[in-house]
Amino acid sequence: MATLEDIGVSALINLFGAFLFLIAFAVLRIQPINDRVYFPKWYLSGDRHSPRRSDGNLVGKFVNLNFKTYFTFLNWMPQAMKMSESEIIRHAGFDSAVFLRIYTLGLKIFVPAMILALAVLVPVNVSSGTLFFLKKELVVSDIDKLSISNVQPESSKFFFHIGVEYLFTLWACFMLYREYNTVALMRLQYLASQRRRPEQFTVVVRNVPDMPGHSVPDTVDQFFKTNHPEHYLCHQAVYNANKYAKLVKQRERLQDWYDYYVLKHQRNPHKKKPTCRTGFLGLWGKKVDSIEYYQQQIKDFDHTMALERQKVLKDSKLMLPVAFVSFDSRWGAAVCAQTQQSKNPTLWLTSSAPEPRDIYWQNLSIPFISLTIRKLIIGVSVFALVFFYMIPIAFVQSLANLQGLDRVAPFLRPVTRLDFVKSFLQGFLPGLALKIFLWILPTVLLIMSKIEGYIALSTLERRAAAKYYYFMLVNVFLGSIIAGTAFEQLDSFLHQSPTQIPRTIGVSIPMKATFFITYIMVDGWAGIAGEILRLKPLVIFHLKNMFIVKTDRDRERAMDPGFVDFKETLPSLQLYFLLGIVYAVVTPILLPFICVFFAFAYLVYRHQIINVYNQQYESCGAFWPHVHGRIIASLLISQLLLMGLLTSKKAANSTPLLIILPILTLSFHKYCKHRFEPAFGKYPLEDAMAKDKLEKETEPELNMKADLADAYLHPIFLSFDEELDEEDERHQKETTEVRVDKHETQSSSPVTELGTPSHYQQHEVYNPTSPSSHYASAYEQSSSQYEYHYETHRYEEHGGYRYNN
Amino acid sequence: MATLEDIGVSALINLFGAFLFLIAFAVLRIQPINDRVYFPKWYLSGDRHSPRRSDGNLVGKFVNLNFKTYFTFLNWMPQAMKMSESEIIRHAGFDSAVFLRIYTLGLKIFVPAMILALAVLVPVNVSSGTLFFLKKELVVSDIDKLSISNVQPESSKFFFHIGVEYLFTLWACFMLYREYNTVALMRLQYLASQRRRPEQFTVVVRNVPDMPGHSVPDTVDQFFKTNHPEHYLCHQAVYNANKYAKLVKQRERLQDWYDYYVLKHQRNPHKKKPTCRTGFLGLWGKKVDSIEYYQQQIKDFDHTMALERQKVLKDSKLMLPVAFVSFDSRWGAAVCAQTQQSKNPTLWLTSSAPEPRDIYWQNLSIPFISLTIRKLIIGVSVFALVFFYMIPIAFVQSLANLQGLDRVAPFLRPVTRLDFVKSFLQGFLPGLALKIFLWILPTVLLIMSKIEGYIALSTLERRAAAKYYYFMLVNVFLGSIIAGTAFEQLDSFLHQSPTQIPRTIGVSIPMKATFFITYIMVDGWAGIAGEILRLKPLVIFHLKNMFIVKTDRDRERAMDPGFVDFKETLPSLQLYFLLGIVYAVVTPILLPFICVFFAFAYLVYRHQIINVYNQQYESCGAFWPHVHGRIIASLLISQLLLMGLLTSKKAANSTPLLIILPILTLSFHKYCKHRFEPAFGKYPLEDAMAKDKLEKETEPELNMKADLADAYLHPIFLSFDEELDEEDERHQKETTEVRVDKHETQSSSPVTELGTPSHYQQHEVYNPTSPSSHYASAYEQSSSQYEYHYETHRYEEHGGYRYNN
Repeated sequence: MATLEDIGVSALINLFGAFLFLIAFAVLRIQPINDRVYFPKWYLSGDRHSPRRSDGNLVGKFVNLNFKTYFTFLNWMPQAMKMSESEIIRHAGFDSAVFLRIYTLGLKIFVPAMILALAVLVPVNVSSGTLFFLKKELVVSDIDKLSISNVQPESSKFFFHIGVEYLFTLWACFMLYREYNTVALMRLQYLASQRRRPEQFTVVVRNVPDMPGHSVPDTVDQFFKTNHPEHYLCHQAVYNANKYAKLVKQRERLQDWYDYYVLKHQRNPHKKKPTCRTGFLGLWGKKVDSIEYYQQQIKDFDHTMALERQKVLKDSKLMLPVAFVSFDSRWGAAVCAQTQQSKNPTLWLTSSAPEPRDIYWQNLSIPFISLTIRKLIIGVSVFALVFFYMIPIAFVQSLANLQGLDRVAPFLRPVTRLDFVKSFLQGFLPGLALKIFLWILPTVLLIMSKIEGYIALSTLERRAAAKYYYFMLVNVFLGSIIAGTAFEQLDSFLHQSPTQIPRTIGVSIPMKATFFITYIMVDGWAGIAGEILRLKPLVIFHLKNMFIVKTDRDRERAMDPGFVDFKETLPSLQLYFLLGIVYAVVTPILLPFICVFFAFAYLVYRHQIINVYNQQYESCGAFWPHVHGRIIASLLISQLLLMGLLTSKKAANSTPLLIILPILTLSFHKYCKHRFEPAFGKYPLEDAMAKDKLEKETEPELNMKADLADAYLHPIFLSFDEELDEEDERHQKETTEVRVDKHETQSSSPVTELGTPSHYQQHEVYNPTSPSSHYASAYEQSSSQYEYHYETHRYEEHGGYRYNN
Repeated sequence: MATLEDIGVSALINLFGAFLFLIAFAVLRIQPINDRVYFPKWYLSGDRHSPRRSDGNLVGKFVNLNFKTYFTFLNWMPQAMKMSESEIIRHAGFDSAVFLRIYTLGLKIFVPAMILALAVLVPVNVSSGTLFFLKKELVVSDIDKLSISNVQPESSKFFFHIGVEYLFTLWACFMLYREYNTVALMRLQYLASQRRRPEQFTVVVRNVPDMPGHSVPDTVDQFFKTNHPEHYLCHQAVYNANKYAKLVKQRERLQDWYDYYVLKHQRNPHKKKPTCRTGFLGLWGKKVDSIEYYQQQIKDFDHTMALERQKVLKDSKLMLPVAFVSFDSRWGAAVCAQTQQSKNPTLWLTSSAPEPRDIYWQNLSIPFISLTIRKLIIGVSVFALVFFYMIPIAFVQSLANLQGLDRVAPFLRPVTRLDFVKSFLQGFLPGLALKIFLWILPTVLLIMSKIEGYIALSTLERRAAAKYYYFMLVNVFLGSIIAGTAFEQLDSFLHQSPTQIPRTIGVSIPMKATFFITYIMVDGWAGIAGEILRLKPLVIFHLKNMFIVKTDRDRERAMDPGFVDFKETLPSLQLYFLLGIVYAVVTPILLPFICVFFAFAYLVYRHQIINVYNQQYESCGAFWPHVHGRIIASLLISQLLLMGLLTSKKAANSTPLLIILPILTLSFHKYCKHRFEPAFGKYPLEDAMAKDKLEKETEPELNMKADLADAYLHPIFLSFDEELDEEDERHQKETTEVRVDKHETQSSSPVTELGTPSHYQQHEVYNPTSPSSHYASAYEQSSSQYEYHYETHRYEEHGGYRYNN
């Protein structure tokens, strides 16, 4: 059992570590050379094109020579606080603003709770038995003296704890209600204030039935003309573009080689032109002029691709039974998304379309029947992963030891026989498997969510976050409280009575307070300070800048702004909520640590959101119901565990008072669900109609059809178009032919806010806050299969310079 | 442990009892005097006006003298089978037809299961150890020899049981899927084939917000004109008519007195006219001519009522924040019912309107926020009722003994001292409280469901049925298997491990087989035979006929056709499914008894539905998802209990095979829920549009507004109108004025299929299969507060005759 002194030392060490990180950050961020690492958001939003310089000379380009700025190294904190919430929404999106609200919610819940608990419970706990509260020795004695463990069994002082638990729950519910209300209202206001966007008018239809003799577009057209005659406008079919995506990838490789040789030639224009061999891997075959060869290859390839493209767009077999159906009003789209279309509820499944950039294209083709099976399989897998993940790791660990290494690589034996190498490996190898597992876990969970078949990236991330939360709840929270693996816990729980389980856990809770305090400091404080330092992007950016960057565009690509990774941050945030809520009554001394974490993380994330992160998509705060639900779950867990703890303390006269609390909490949750959750799923007709009317008044002669026709075309087709715009007029004509069928009314009003006939601009609409290069990179990360870049002009502005900021 | 012989004797006794009931039924039903008891449905449907007579003389009017018919006393069985399903739907409604399908589903599941289990498991069970299967003695030995108890622990024969459980589950799921599919399709076909009915065009809107300066109708009108401009037609406000309903009741009492005196005078017209006193209870005051006095009283009262009626209809304070909003198309109504209207999801709550006769008017005024609280309170109460109902009963029982009686009524002491009275009371009193409780339980549960705030009678019954099922599951099923009260069970379960519970229950299951076989015979076989005899309605009808009936109308009112009481029959039916499913593998000898029950009950209910019952409302089979869900739950329970049983038999090598079965069953349930349940809640737009189009083609000049304006007026206003039509033209004018505002377009096409301007006929529409008197009686039963009769002409056809059939 750690003493307060131990905790104090640990806190100092961690504070010192965090402080070091902050100093490093403060120094690095004001160097012009790092400007694109610490302020990429401003470059992406177009507000900054070159770093602020301290003065005009050459060194000043790279190093900050204004020494005054070094003394104000914490001035990023007030700067981060300057921007108002509405500015943040405009600047970084709604998701980011709501994400920050989670931290303020944490502060709002825990700061008053901390004051109350420290003022009431600590004296009560300390004074238990004899009143030696005022003695100096106490401050340096066991931390347990401050916790509920210090209270004698059967004491009537437990009424204080129950009272505080009631007050705390009421306060937390009150804050949760206020926050849910605010976020729901903000969301609706945000939706109402948004410019016209294709997702407002579009519905994604899955499981279009196969009508013999009719193509999918015909079927869709006929169905919606019949059943939504007043508002149906047009639709966009979805193609199975896997083969085409492969071609796109190949072409990109050719382009890379072409770029490479062009660059090589331009660096040394006086040397002879580079050559290469046409055979396997360039090892043999005829020697040709590389630049001309690849130019020709690319040209040929473009032709093949254009043919393939035609095939994909025209072959009805490659059409998926999915369509994006657009309506002439938000009302029509809202109606279609919320209603049941067909007798058979597994056909014509409609739901509001996600943003075009939020769509996960691969999952659009999954048929309905396999969704149930997929969900079942993934459900079972997640259960297995959470409870049995130690089994394969233990197996790998049993292999990954020195003997195993010797067997696999006997030639290393002389090296592994060295004492220090041996001891290093023995300490390192067994942990390696676990570390690799924990490192790839979020990715594995994301893949699992993908298999479940959700079609929006935002949903995928939310589902992955949920799975990660379960993992942390069982393996970090319960796993730390009860020794043993999750599997052993599960086994023991199955053989205990339901009333015994909270008691078993409850009893161990106060004893683990010191562990969790350390956890908060290491994982929370120092981790957050590491977040702001951005060590990895810093190194990668400079490496890229050194070796790859040739044009401004390249430099922009080398910037990795990153984003709030909801699938990791939300679950760990929820774990902190859980810790705070559980320990609020049991060991109130943990609360200050939680509060410091929330305050510090709030500052850091605010700074990062303003200056660094660039979100991939906008879900309009769709994660809030999950945040709310998990905090409620934490409240329930804390109540159950407190009950278990109190029964083990034989507080028979006070414990029954607690039974009513979970019931009240649950019904509060149910009420909130009824009251607020629909705002996160359905678009109210009232709002839709109001917005439609307003728009009709301001822009009476609007041609919606032209705007919406291409909004939901698969991005690889769009990207190809752009190139064609500039490279080959003939192809352009061919490919647009396909689309012209849906553009009949285009002539009436060609230029609108949503887009213009130019595909490039139309494409811009989806992501108004960032240039198209970032847009592409979002797809890169989301689906490597379809990755494709927009770098057509890579060599228009080539130059030998490196840091010509 | 009962032997097979005991069971055989018990079966014989019960068969004999059932046989006696059937004989009595066969004799009673062919007596013309009982015709209205055993064939009321035909009277109500208008196909029969007087009983079939065997010959022309006076005795033949009352007693069947055709002795040939006595020998064919079972001919109701083939008769019951004659009618096809579609005819039953037309004749008795969709609910009744689907209700019958539950019995055929039971037969389809259990007959093959019985053959399989008897052919495979009984030999396996019996042959356990030594093969003395062929010995004659076995047949009369212990019933446990045939059950799983006979198999030695650790035997590998349990693989047979697991195999049969798998086969049985697969078969049951297959049948459930087919049946769900059929019922869902039938429902949609039925909806599509229905004539135009107000509920197809109407949506009930709850929680209309209070707009200062606007009345509820104005707010509703404005909101729907704005947000559903293309399809909104009109709406019907809902009034708080509690005070008016009281007046209606008082007037009825006056009418009764008036009727009484008129009758008294007419029986003896030569005597002087009856008189009464005007003072308190008619004991003092001025002596007046009764007939004239009540005539005057009624006239005065009608005036007061007309004023009150005006007040209710015009006072905006008495308007509830609820409205029935009608649309000009089924599509518009379906859209409005399925979408979210307002930013605030607790306002403007829309849902498909139930049939007018299905509405439970009192609950329309419950505000949304109190619904959560009401549901919470009722949830807790149901839990308490299920687990702790024995506590108050034990308390009452402790009072209701001889000593208690002596204390309350000491004057009875001489009587209670008599030995036979004493022993009777001692045996009778303690059980009385329990019997009364069980008798009123369904009513109590219905009241609880009413408090929960559902607005349709059909939903109320379904909710009450669910509660009753939980009660039976815990107190009949578990309570019989494990000795002790539900409260004691709950206590022991809380202190056992989750894996121990199925084992505890599983072990006792085979031992209770005999009890449940007896239960099936007594409650099932004999109970069903009692159902067909209709002893209570028979007696009540003849008593009423003797003392009350004066006119044909009275005789019709005296008929009590009854109805399928879903809130009692569904839960007990589900209990039989549970018994069959649980014992299919454990004690297969129980299955034949279940099959006989299903077959017999099917015949009886088919006969009753065709000849007797008259449903109060039509929910279009809305109870099917519940039936399906509970059978799935039974499958899960049986799997868990079999696992528990097998672990107690130490069948460690075979038991794990069972673990996958509940997971598969659950995902099957999830799939079915996705696939079929929407058909029971939402009206697909495709169907709505098709029906709309068809109608527009066949009847292009339809005036919907006039048809729908009054469809959802509170029935007490409608009933009053009818009287006024005939009694007082002046009142008529006054009261219709109110409604004229909504009838502006009435003149264009006054006569339509749906209704005519005459209120009486319009009223008829709701219940096309029965005359209005039954319509009134439906309301009587549903809400005594508003009960009101249509007997205006009670004395137009008066006569001294009793049985003038």
